[in-house]
Amino acid sequence: MFIFAYSQLLMIILHVTCGYDYTTNYITVPVDHFSYTNSDTFKMKYLMNDTYWDVDKGPIFFYAGNEAPIEDFSDNTGFMWEISREFNALVVFAEHRYYGESMPYGKSSLDDKVKLGYLTSQQAMADFVDLIKYLRNDTLCIGKRPNPVIAFGGSYGGMLAAWFRIKYPATVEGAIASSAPIWQFTGMTPCNDFYKVTSSVYRNTNIECGSTISASWKAINNVTETDSGKAWLTDNWKLCTPLETTDDVARLKYWAADVYVALAMVNYPYEANFLAPLPANPIKEVCKSMTNHTEDDATLLMSVFHGLSVYFNYTGSASCLNLSSAFSDDMTKGWNYQACTEMIMPFCTKGGEDDIFEPYPWDFESYAKYCENRYGVKPTTDDVEKQYGGKNLKAASNIIFSNGLLDPWSSGGVLKSISSTVRALLIPDGAHHLDLRASHPNDTTSVIHARKTIKHWIIKWIFDYRHRK
Amino acid sequence: MFIFAYSQLLMIILHVTCGYDYTTNYITVPVDHFSYTNSDTFKMKYLMNDTYWDVDKGPIFFYAGNEAPIEDFSDNTGFMWEISREFNALVVFAEHRYYGESMPYGKSSLDDKVKLGYLTSQQAMADFVDLIKYLRNDTLCIGKRPNPVIAFGGSYGGMLAAWFRIKYPATVEGAIASSAPIWQFTGMTPCNDFYKVTSSVYRNTNIECGSTISASWKAINNVTETDSGKAWLTDNWKLCTPLETTDDVARLKYWAADVYVALAMVNYPYEANFLAPLPANPIKEVCKSMTNHTEDDATLLMSVFHGLSVYFNYTGSASCLNLSSAFSDDMTKGWNYQACTEMIMPFCTKGGEDDIFEPYPWDFESYAKYCENRYGVKPTTDDVEKQYGGKNLKAASNIIFSNGLLDPWSSGGVLKSISSTVRALLIPDGAHHLDLRASHPNDTTSVIHARKTIKHWIIKWIFDYRHRK
Repeated sequence: MFIFAYSQLLMIILHVTCGYDYTTNYITVPVDHFSYTNSDTFKMKYLMNDTYWDVDKGPIFFYAGNEAPIEDFSDNTGFMWEISREFNALVVFAEHRYYGESMPYGKSSLDDKVKLGYLTSQQAMADFVDLIKYLRNDTLCIGKRPNPVIAFGGSYGGMLAAWFRIKYPATVEGAIASSAPIWQFTGMTPCNDFYKVTSSVYRNTNIECGSTISASWKAINNVTETDSGKAWLTDNWKLCTPLETTDDVARLKYWAADVYVALAMVNYPYEANFLAPLPANPIKEVCKSMTNHTEDDATLLMSVFHGLSVYFNYTGSASCLNLSSAFSDDMTKGWNYQACTEMIMPFCTKGGEDDIFEPYPWDFESYAKYCENRYGVKPTTDDVEKQYGGKNLKAASNIIFSNGLLDPWSSGGVLKSISSTVRALLIPDGAHHLDLRASHPNDTTSVIHARKTIKHWIIKWIFDYRHRK
Repeated sequence: MFIFAYSQLLMIILHVTCGYDYTTNYITVPVDHFSYTNSDTFKMKYLMNDTYWDVDKGPIFFYAGNEAPIEDFSDNTGFMWEISREFNALVVFAEHRYYGESMPYGKSSLDDKVKLGYLTSQQAMADFVDLIKYLRNDTLCIGKRPNPVIAFGGSYGGMLAAWFRIKYPATVEGAIASSAPIWQFTGMTPCNDFYKVTSSVYRNTNIECGSTISASWKAINNVTETDSGKAWLTDNWKLCTPLETTDDVARLKYWAADVYVALAMVNYPYEANFLAPLPANPIKEVCKSMTNHTEDDATLLMSVFHGLSVYFNYTGSASCLNLSSAFSDDMTKGWNYQACTEMIMPFCTKGGEDDIFEPYPWDFESYAKYCENRYGVKPTTDDVEKQYGGKNLKAASNIIFSNGLLDPWSSGGVLKSISSTVRALLIPDGAHHLDLRASHPNDTTSVIHARKTIKHWIIKWIFDYRHRK
């Protein structure tokens, strides 16, 4: 569960064309911004729209791209598009190096550790600085005119937006960091908090739902003890590949745990297809069938299966349940590499009162071994803290950390305001970066309020910027 | 003059044992902090003294080493030693990579461009972060206890101290950046400001002194037009090597201009031997002989020679005037490399009303050519602005920029307070980082006051740090 869990930060998915209009552009940037040993360059992609832009005073809304092709984020960040009109803003989405088309060494970028070594958040942010400078001077020719840059980002992109403001406050005037787990690191957040939050979402939806999931792990173990039990589960859960070994059973449990996490992330109040096509309030839907944790193992497992079906087969088009990842190796390799270098996030579960999962410790040693085997890198646990300050954000300014409390990643988020200009914004009934998504008739009061608050802060930052010049 | 001028930022010189006591230590740090392509490490040197340290509450006074062996800075930063007692501070001087003993690739560190490529301010600061973390956790075992770090630095070290606070405010609570020309870069300060300040020091000492220097360039040109004139000057200025070509004459003029700058930098109110052994208020001494710019060429050149003698022969031990640099190639190679990569500082002179020098334009193209020939690097002009924010320091906090107005480098310094916690501190009769030097009976009121102000700010920062935890 713990290695797979990383792929959930990876917010890739189904390409949906949302009808947002942009031009696709490229800028040449250095592969290495921090030494002079490598003078290679590459083309970084960015999307731009100036429909509503007022060159004399409009801000630049800059999305700090994360671990997927940039279109995935431009499609799922409707908030930026919607408010660009009232702010007369230029909209820019920058693609993160080593994702989408922005490959420093073309198709072989992810192949070897020397080429992959430049995949870091620091290098990505230095790309962003170059892009903003280039836009100001070469493309827009606005130089230092009063067009402040406001950074936006969700999830890892939200971390980048916050860090971007922390490290480059002269480049970016403020940051909207949505669902940004900047404290999901060693020594900052207990390793089981992520699954605690996930669990509370199920328990709060329906206490029996949480208990049913809790009970299901033992039920799976019981039933799959025998070969006939494995065959029964294969049959009744309609698995594409039969359960044969204990490893197969473990993989099934990982998959289920991942699904529970994914559902919590995308527990939106309307139909959406972000991680998968799902109904409105999917957890409510999932929990409908899981209402009695005292059922016998077979009955309980069938009710769990019905619940899980909401995730893997909402459309009814899946002929069987495929446990292998929906993500190709190419799609996840970049992020998994980052998770082996800078982004070491410890996860664990304890079970019982703590969470609805089977106990599973955080084992740094074995994780490090995996990283060495796969990428030839030795993970360290303190790079992020050293570079970005960890829990000490006292000197930061102009950052909104918004978090939906239904989102497992809120465990590593900033949930209390740090200072008068570094603010925590809570969306109690919101899931993973709901606030950055396009508005929807089903939006709850809390997300509508959050978006208003964000706009107020942006107005203030722009005002402060203009009246300083 | 313009390439040589860089060597004046290089504050090396005569090793003086000041009787400060310390242990000499080493820490292993990565050669590259910003990519995972190179896993080499090296030993970085640091000096430490805990005589007055109170482990329960004393701060860590951390000198951000600059472009020379660290002992040069520990010897010439008496202020830190003196106040360590009243603050119960731990004193640490960290050596900058590629200087002194801190050579990433041993004796061949400066030899080729791949090895040299990791000589950057960013990498050096990441070393400092590692050192501070290591001191806290491994050496002092204080973890996150209330021992705030205050960074100090003079000249390039002052730039590093300021940038260190800007980039790593969670690591360092405040910075004393003395004579730190963080704005001596393209687009931030006109290229002739440096020589304007230098000129004003001479003109203010004695208007005739400035005029005499102004007139001397033409006098040199006139006299050296003929071979007999060259011989005359060689003889009368006691040159070690005779003037034979126009290039030799140009070199003589460069040398003289450099001496005028150096004198302005070390125009201290007491005898000192920082760049050279010099009397108190050396410019006053130099100007004593230069009192009439209308003298005939030969008389004028003799008065100038007597003035210059104060610099090159105050002790009377020089048998002839040696125009070649006092710095070996090894001593300057590191800084000259930095001046070809990140630290491109444009200098020029205009002559006439503007300054006391011959007009000399800033020629980036030829400078770039020199850098390519010598180091195989193509200089860019905006790295510092992109990384550290240039003139926009609005989001910074807890930095004192102190500048002596006799110091040519004050031209690129922060001379006006930016905000309530980023303060400019002017020392009208102070030269290059006079405030960081040990106190002296001849200290002027202004430097005594500056040191008091600095101490007040340090007290405030420590207070704020403690009452936040």
